[in-house]
Amino acid sequence: MYQIGVDIGGTNIKIGLVDDQLQIVKRTSIPFPHLDGEGVAKQIANEVRKLLAEFDCTEADLRGVGVIVPGSIDPTGSIVINAHNLGFHDVPFKAQLQAQFTQTTVYLANDADGAALAELGRGAFTGCNTAVLMTLGTGVGGGVILGGKMFCGGTRQGVELGHMPLIAGGEHCTCGVDGCIEAYCSATALAREGVRAMQANPDSALAVKSGGDPKVIDAKFVIDLAKEGDPVAKAVFDAYVDKLGSACIAIIHILDPEVIAIGGGVCGAGEFLFAPLRENVKKKCFFSNHGAIVPAVMGNDAGIVGAAMLVTQ
Amino acid sequence: MYQIGVDIGGTNIKIGLVDDQLQIVKRTSIPFPHLDGEGVAKQIANEVRKLLAEFDCTEADLRGVGVIVPGSIDPTGSIVINAHNLGFHDVPFKAQLQAQFTQTTVYLANDADGAALAELGRGAFTGCNTAVLMTLGTGVGGGVILGGKMFCGGTRQGVELGHMPLIAGGEHCTCGVDGCIEAYCSATALAREGVRAMQANPDSALAVKSGGDPKVIDAKFVIDLAKEGDPVAKAVFDAYVDKLGSACIAIIHILDPEVIAIGGGVCGAGEFLFAPLRENVKKKCFFSNHGAIVPAVMGNDAGIVGAAMLVTQ
Repeated sequence: MYQIGVDIGGTNIKIGLVDDQLQIVKRTSIPFPHLDGEGVAKQIANEVRKLLAEFDCTEADLRGVGVIVPGSIDPTGSIVINAHNLGFHDVPFKAQLQAQFTQTTVYLANDADGAALAELGRGAFTGCNTAVLMTLGTGVGGGVILGGKMFCGGTRQGVELGHMPLIAGGEHCTCGVDGCIEAYCSATALAREGVRAMQANPDSALAVKSGGDPKVIDAKFVIDLAKEGDPVAKAVFDAYVDKLGSACIAIIHILDPEVIAIGGGVCGAGEFLFAPLRENVKKKCFFSNHGAIVPAVMGNDAGIVGAAMLVTQ
Repeated sequence: MYQIGVDIGGTNIKIGLVDDQLQIVKRTSIPFPHLDGEGVAKQIANEVRKLLAEFDCTEADLRGVGVIVPGSIDPTGSIVINAHNLGFHDVPFKAQLQAQFTQTTVYLANDADGAALAELGRGAFTGCNTAVLMTLGTGVGGGVILGGKMFCGGTRQGVELGHMPLIAGGEHCTCGVDGCIEAYCSATALAREGVRAMQANPDSALAVKSGGDPKVIDAKFVIDLAKEGDPVAKAVFDAYVDKLGSACIAIIHILDPEVIAIGGGVCGAGEFLFAPLRENVKKKCFFSNHGAIVPAVMGNDAGIVGAAMLVTQ
């Protein structure tokens, strides 16, 4: 049998037909339509029906439809409380989706949880009982696997790794509190430190190559210059790795996971990031051993596969 | 049937006969003998036999013997890796204990895990699936309940809540890393800040009542003066509550526990601590709701009851 995975983002909706080996056997994508919940649900259902028809099967051949959204879901898994990029606030999205499907069941979850599930299904967490995914992008998201299953929080509020304190009272975070992991470990934070270093070091490669324009400096810009050996960019990058190491330590000392996987654009740095990160964590870790720290591997497929896995989990 | 719970501390060994309702029906205590593992195991076995004889039962009436130690245990639950207060390092303590008991099984765990189990059995965590105990003393210990059971870490290294970063790179911690929860939230840390404030404010009640002697200032001294309204002591206490609030937030944003229980001497402050702590956590919490923050209730019985529960868990 098959399941449908739907990965809703603020730009596109990606839809895939997923088999029992978690392979995406057919996929499609549409721009996010910026409608209300019912309107979005209708468009998704239309695309799913088209996809099924192309594959010569029907709703009745499906185990279910899993949908992930970039936002917070209520404890019953029914309501999208807030998904800013979708313009969804207190939207009864599960019911709206279910109304479009008469012969199969709909499941709804947060996108970071879905991505962690995908790593569990056929990625970095294969065979794990306890694992944590941290995604470093505009913000810092995360998903936790406990007992070999997606963990949605003890009171089903979810998991907000990015808003664990790292330097309590430090850098201001978008959540309103100061010093969260997100305020130090997001790609945004790395870029911010790059801009500060550029401004403080007008002769640095950071300053010269950016033409002094803060808008030019993103995480990749800093990483590339650090790789090229610019000492100012390298110092910014080293400080970032130290913060990310402390974030890993926070996770290790409470969950001692078998694997921490790190995803998001910053991971494009590869071993230039992971080698010193592992060294940093080893130095700070209370335990004589700790689980592996590896890049997330599911990439662009994480959303569809994780969403599809909601059906079987 | 019954189980024996043995709570080994650096000063005393407490032993209790525990029934299936987790009540301690008989108890005894001996000074910690400062012998090697085998010597300590023999003394414990002698005391257990005396206790059983007084209760007119034998080893055969026991489900097992649970033993907790203030130190780290290896992933197999057999070796005490380090228990500084006992002088135990790489001691095969489970086997040494088991050698003393021919008709019943011995179980070994860390004392913070045992205390969390006791709260689960008949304390603050009754009926919980997800709960966290944090004990504030000389250091900061902790135990985690997941899925309604004691959690020993994903790779069975344990849980070291006290060494999660709180202000990474901040105050030096006994573990060698800077900025751990323990360096801000232990009773020791509260006393340290009291001493600093006393030295900086020679006219304060802290300075006058301590006679300027740092040795006089412990956590209770600071709390008592804060309660009496000394503004310098109150500022120290408020800053401490803010740090403890951030430590709770770290736990909430990764585990979203149904209950956080806080134990240790600092909790003697009662609602003077818990009321502002709850307000602080509510202000910083990403979730609209979070689990309760309450005092641990098992007190001196936590060790014996938690150790006994190892047998049935």
